[in-house]
Amino acid sequence: MPRYALRIEYDGRPFAGWQRQAEHPSVQGALEAAVARISPGAGAVFGAGRTDAGVHAAGQVAHLDLPRAWDPFRLSEALNWHLKPDPVAVTGAVEVPEAFHARFDAVERRYRFRLVARRAPLTEDRGFAWRVNHPLDLEAMRAAAAHLVGRHDFTTFRSSICQAPSPVRTLDAVGIEELDYPAGREIRFHLRARSFLHNQVRSIVGTLERVGTGAWPPGRVAEALAARDRSACGPVCPPDGLSLIEVRYPAPLFERP
Amino acid sequence: MPRYALRIEYDGRPFAGWQRQAEHPSVQGALEAAVARISPGAGAVFGAGRTDAGVHAAGQVAHLDLPRAWDPFRLSEALNWHLKPDPVAVTGAVEVPEAFHARFDAVERRYRFRLVARRAPLTEDRGFAWRVNHPLDLEAMRAAAAHLVGRHDFTTFRSSICQAPSPVRTLDAVGIEELDYPAGREIRFHLRARSFLHNQVRSIVGTLERVGTGAWPPGRVAEALAARDRSACGPVCPPDGLSLIEVRYPAPLFERP
Repeated sequence: MPRYALRIEYDGRPFAGWQRQAEHPSVQGALEAAVARISPGAGAVFGAGRTDAGVHAAGQVAHLDLPRAWDPFRLSEALNWHLKPDPVAVTGAVEVPEAFHARFDAVERRYRFRLVARRAPLTEDRGFAWRVNHPLDLEAMRAAAAHLVGRHDFTTFRSSICQAPSPVRTLDAVGIEELDYPAGREIRFHLRARSFLHNQVRSIVGTLERVGTGAWPPGRVAEALAARDRSACGPVCPPDGLSLIEVRYPAPLFERP
Repeated sequence: MPRYALRIEYDGRPFAGWQRQAEHPSVQGALEAAVARISPGAGAVFGAGRTDAGVHAAGQVAHLDLPRAWDPFRLSEALNWHLKPDPVAVTGAVEVPEAFHARFDAVERRYRFRLVARRAPLTEDRGFAWRVNHPLDLEAMRAAAAHLVGRHDFTTFRSSICQAPSPVRTLDAVGIEELDYPAGREIRFHLRARSFLHNQVRSIVGTLERVGTGAWPPGRVAEALAARDRSACGPVCPPDGLSLIEVRYPAPLFERP
């Protein structure tokens, strides 16, 4: 059966996460229902990243097998038609070799986390950013983040239910930028790695926020990492601001429009 | 009674517009309900701009009278508490002279309109941008917009139910910028004027979109303006991408945080 890779964007708010579940709406379930409408007998949809409930994506990638060949553009249009009204969109489709695997072939994942520091509740960005009440010290957060970049045992920064066989990961970058935001400041965290552990991004951002407020000195993040102890982690932040921005492969899959 | 000015942000999607209505939820109604909870006997809330259904605001300004004096910060906190769960937030509050009027004293209004040019449906930005299927020619739109800047009779570009006594307005600027957007391009229109007519921004953006596709030559916009005839206008675009960004007064009312 021919295999296709899809680039997928979604608003994670109405979903219990990427992964198909019997009782709750999921992004994978929404996609597989759309695929079943256009091509009964198609296989499952395998995603590169199993995003949690409430986590968004601008560039999730998945692969699937179809019983017959499709023009990739027509495939994306047909899936988008049947995905309505779910806030999920296929923004790219391409035929790939039968051995391609969206998850195992990925060489880099990029996540973005949006935090808004202001007093007033969020309106348009409700569910799309984590609001905190207080200003944050960017330089302190950057100093703390520098301790995490590189190859480390991230036991402290992964969920206790994480199923990855090894807690060792190489975090390639943690960029922190500040933007104007109405009546406040927006802080964006940009994280890059070949792969991430379960809750790793939210554990890191939640811990860096403690540093930003001054509650933690930056060096405490290095100690927490060295402890290899989940209880040394700061609070895990909410999913609201998190989005899987891009998944990269050895050769680029999708053209920029 | 002491008078206060409020800066207000809202997600316009659940509302029938700014203006209070008996049968439908409105932003003004939500604010007046919150005011009644903290200060029975307070007056009405007067807004600077009567935004339509589905139109958002980052910087609406309104004034109200309260029977007793409030610390402005505590006023904004109390209103935000009682506004929950509506997507309306007070992002600034200040005491103003009793003669201050949010609408009549305003000397400039700034609107932003977000358009996304791509094939795939929107997900996170559903309701916050107008999606069109085709690429748009920015230079042609800028050339067309230049015909509209200045003092003109905007009869062509106002709703047939607009109640303003005069169709003459001075449009100070129409800026058009292009940004990266996942699987497409975002185009932002920035319009500035002392005041706008009913549906003026959406009439202008809908007409400029026709120019951007090549359906209208830029000069046709000058002809449409000169015609002073509503039927010469291009299609009025949807409200989704429109936001009242800022209202200015002779002296700045609110500090930047």
